[in-house]
Order: sequence, then C-alpha cells, then structure tokens
Amino acid sequence: VTVDDVHAAAARLRGIANQTPVMTSRTLDGRVGGQVFCKCESFQRVGAFKFRGAYNALALLREREPHAAERGVLTYSSGNHAQAIALASSLLGIRATIVMPDDAPRTKIAATRGYLGKGGEVVLYNRAEITREELGARLAQERGMTIVPPYDHPDVIAGQGTVALELFEVAGQLDWLFVCCGGGGLLSGCSIVARALGESRVVGVEPEAGDDACRSFETRELQSVRDPQTVADGARTPSLGRWTFPLVLANVDEMMSVSDGELCSAMHFAYERMKLVIEPTGALALAGLLRVARERGVAVHAQRIGVIVSGGNVDLDRLADFWALGREWEASA
Amino acid sequence: VTVDDVHAAAARLRGIANQTPVMTSRTLDGRVGGQVFCKCESFQRVGAFKFRGAYNALALLREREPHAAERGVLTYSSGNHAQAIALASSLLGIRATIVMPDDAPRTKIAATRGYLGKGGEVVLYNRAEITREELGARLAQERGMTIVPPYDHPDVIAGQGTVALELFEVAGQLDWLFVCCGGGGLLSGCSIVARALGESRVVGVEPEAGDDACRSFETRELQSVRDPQTVADGARTPSLGRWTFPLVLANVDEMMSVSDGELCSAMHFAYERMKLVIEPTGALALAGLLRVARERGVAVHAQRIGVIVSGGNVDLDRLADFWALGREWEASA
Repeated sequence: VTVDDVHAAAARLRGIANQTPVMTSRTLDGRVGGQVFCKCESFQRVGAFKFRGAYNALALLREREPHAAERGVLTYSSGNHAQAIALASSLLGIRATIVMPDDAPRTKIAATRGYLGKGGEVVLYNRAEITREELGARLAQERGMTIVPPYDHPDVIAGQGTVALELFEVAGQLDWLFVCCGGGGLLSGCSIVARALGESRVVGVEPEAGDDACRSFETRELQSVRDPQTVADGARTPSLGRWTFPLVLANVDEMMSVSDGELCSAMHFAYERMKLVIEPTGALALAGLLRVARERGVAVHAQRIGVIVSGGNVDLDRLADFWALGREWEASA
Repeated sequence: VTVDDVHAAAARLRGIANQTPVMTSRTLDGRVGGQVFCKCESFQRVGAFKFRGAYNALALLREREPHAAERGVLTYSSGNHAQAIALASSLLGIRATIVMPDDAPRTKIAATRGYLGKGGEVVLYNRAEITREELGARLAQERGMTIVPPYDHPDVIAGQGTVALELFEVAGQLDWLFVCCGGGGLLSGCSIVARALGESRVVGVEPEAGDDACRSFETRELQSVRDPQTVADGARTPSLGRWTFPLVLANVDEMMSVSDGELCSAMHFAYERMKLVIEPTGALALAGLLRVARERGVAVHAQRIGVIVSGGNVDLDRLADFWALGREWEASA
C-alpha cells in the first residue's frame, strides 16, 4: 500500500465521506506546551473513520470485480466496521450480509440494520454455538460473497490513510502524529501518509490490557492477546494483521500503551474542555499525547502535534462509569 | 441596535472569538424533512456565545470611555457570562470584579479565576446575607467600576448578533432560525441580523417553567417569572430586559416553550447522533425545531433551517439524570 493508493482512495471518497473538522483547544495547547491539531473522525459518517476504508474497499471491488460485487459482500463485526460496511454497501448498491453476535447491544444491531440497503441482512449467531469466522466463511461460500475484513486488507488501509491526508492538508507539517491502534488499519494507513508527506514522529497508542502491538513492535514478531478486557472496545482485536504488521514495523516510530483510567481521564478532558463526544477508543491517541507531555514534556514543547480522534460511538449510559475510572486514576497519579 | 452595530462587533471579534463550525447531520435532516444548519457556540471561547457580547462591550468601553475602562468593570453571574467577562477583560487589559455566590460550583469559580487577568478578582457572597445586585452596586460604586450586565446592554446584544452573521455567511439564506431565549440577548441580536439579511422566520425557544418571554410576547407587556426550576440553567432569568424586550417584539416571529423532558431528549440526540457536548440551555433551539417538525411537519418540509446551539458548559456528572428525564418524556410522548 503506497501513498498513491491513499490519494486514489481520497478521490473516491470525495463528496461521499465527510471532510471532518480539525479542532484545536487553547487549554490543550497550554497543557502540552505545543500546538495540537485534533482530527475528529467522531464527525465521520457512521460516527467513525471506519466508513472510509469500508467504502474504498467496496468501491474498488465494484471497479475491479463487478461480478463479485454483484454477488455481494460479507463481514463480521459488532462494532463500527459493521455499520461502515452496511452504509457503504447501501450507497454503492452492493448487497451485504453482516454477521453479529445475538448478544450485541440492540442499538448497534438496529443502527446496522438502519444503514443497510436493499438485499442487505444482519445475521445473528449464538457465541456458544459457533464462531463468527466459521459462520462467516460458511455463509460467504454459500452466497458467493466476498469477505471484507475490518482492517487487514490493502484497500481498507488505503481508505483509512485519507484521515491523515486531510489532517496534513489543514494543519500543515507536523512534528508528531498520535494514532490509536487496534488491528492497525488506521495506524498503517496514516503512517504511510506521514512517511510520504513529511517527517512526523508517528506514535501508535493501544490499551494496556491489549498491548499485543507494542510487544509485536518490540520483538518484531507478531504477538497476540486473547479477549483483552478494556473500555476501548474498538481496540480489543487479538493482533495486528498480515498486512498491517509489516506496515507498522516499516512506518511507525514508537508504540505505547495507556491504562483504562488514563484513557478515561483523557476522554473526560475531551468532553469537558473540547466539547467532543468521543468513544473510549477515540481517546487513545489523546491519552498517549498527554502521557508523553507528562513524562517527556520537553519532547513536545513548542512542537506541532497531530492527534487522531477515531470515533464517537459511545454508550452514553456508561459515561458515569468512565468518569469514575478517570478520577480514580487521577487521584492515584 | 442595528445590523451595522453587529457588523462592527464582528470586525472587533475577528481573530479573537472563534469562528465556530456549522454542523449538519443527515439523521437530523431525515427526521425533520428539511436541511438543518447547527451553529455550534459550544466551541466558542469559554464554551458559550457569551464571550462575543462580553468582548464587544468591553472593547467598546475602552474605545469610548478609556478612563472608565481604566477603573475596571464589574459583573454578577454564576454562569457563562462570568467566565466571558473574565476572559474578555484579561485579553483587553481591563481589571474585572466578578461577584459570585459562595455556593456556586467550585469548578465554575475556579474556571472564572483561571480566565481572569492581572488585577481581576472573584468576590464571593452569601446569598442569605445580601443580594448580588446590592453587593454589585456597592462594590461598583466603591471601586468606580462600570457594571456590564449579562444581556440587557446594546453592545452585548450587538456582539451576540455576530453568531447569526456567521451562520448566514456559511449557510446562506434560511427559511427558519431557531434561537434559545433567557434574557433575550442572543435572540435580539440574531433577530436583528435575520431581519436585515433575509426573510427567515425567527423562533425564540425558552423552557416551559420560565415562559415569561412567551407571555410577554403574547401580551406585549413585560412579564416575569421568579426563580424558575428548569435544567436549562442559562435561561433561568426572571424576564426580558429594557433593551431586549422591544427588539424581540420587533424582530421575532414566534415564541415557544419546551418542557425539560423534551429538552433532555433533544440533548441526547445531539450527543448520540451529532457527537456534540452541549448544555441543556444549548439544546433549547434544537428541541424547538423538533417540536415544530413533530406538530407542524409540513411547515419545515424541504426548508432550510438554522439552529443556534448556544453553549457546552454542562456538569458531566449530571448527564445520567438528563438522559433519564429525556427517556421519561419519550415514553410518555
């Protein structure tokens, strides 16, 4: 995947994906001692950057393999990728099957159904009876559908890279770029752009409980983690992928992890001072920056810093729990 | 106060106030059946539109009465106006005294102190011992300070009007403009602009418990309400003012009120679907629009609609209460 693929993705997404705002905050700048540019994918369609990769992958499938596109696509996800594929397939007139666990939040199932177009279907399964991979593979074969994975796919990665492209367009040169990391799709895509366009130090940030990417980065061997318990539900992926791992190794300068308390404290800051509704995973990059500012203040002093806020699909009934976690951490820090 | 005063205020605020974003939402458009443009003053400095009027009034004082400006300004407020005067005075190098009740939330007192510049002071008083007007008047006389009221002042009104000016610049002609109403500063200022620039139907929206402006509008005589109990703490003002009442009568087309439950339901919509952190008062205009769409759907169908989101300074620990109120109302509606 090269920066040319990202540029091509940007052309495909023009007028379809939102050109999300880059927000600044004098309070944040004061706290960090540098100039911070937050690219807010919480304002993206379906509430997260995932729409970019999903749309790019499906648009390319239709261009390159029209017959496959006619048979439709399938994905398994209970998160933002499910909604992204649902909306992208609907916009492109491609049938989609979304495999979701039957215990997924009703609001997520309803939202996914709401985005689906004609011929689209949500298939629910019982986690105790079958894995999503087994069911997904079987259905895809039966229906002749193409599986579109949530991150480990070159066209998905190129789509996610457009986030960084737009950030650089608005903010200009950046000394640092902080990006959250689950499966590494957003991080790979953005790091390709950062390498091609400038000299930013690219930092990937993941939750402490799921620090597989940090360990993979350090050992240069793919490590994994099983069902990590973290509030950052978008980063509970078991490991980087076949495509994303080499890209992260090649283009990322540093990997770090943050605790859930630290994450919730950063999230509270975003709500209180920046007036942004973001999900826990969306606060990973900000939490990483705040950690670096605390521990290595001079390193970010007077620097230009990009922070990618990945999404805003939070369960609003859980906010009080998140604030409590954040306060606990602040009291102990 | 004329639209020329608003244009002059806009020139004064250029590069100092934030040019806040105008956000759109396909979900909102779908629900209303029209095209909605939300001007988000939650992203304004100090988190609310109040900064505009405060800065304009203080800048004009310094221009017109430099000696008075040298002696400083005083205001009484426990809300967004206090922080607005604190920041504006600090930026303009004017001493400010802010009178606040000693039971105001510590975070608000701390935030106000944080914005104050050299020579600035927060004076706390005990509500049981003295009224803020008495103490304010006494201190202003002792210190030779000019009192800057929160809404009933022509320069404050002209400053608030710049919100509508920026909205029209971005959104173009609007068929409807929904604005919240407490003391009527924002509503007067914006209605002057709407009258001068186009043919928008201007609707003022206030909380049901404090429907003094609705009654004043209907009877064309100034009505007041005593300490109304509503979650919209920015609209708990007793009545419109000597300046704002005639302006509202002259330029506003319709006044309406919404219940707290309705307000909280609209607020939840803004968080969930638009990813905006807003305060209850900030959701008044949106709640008004949703009511009109529900009850007179055809009136907003295919129309271009402006909604002013006035601020985002919410107590994040109270969100769960607000969601509960909103759900209760939705269940009963």
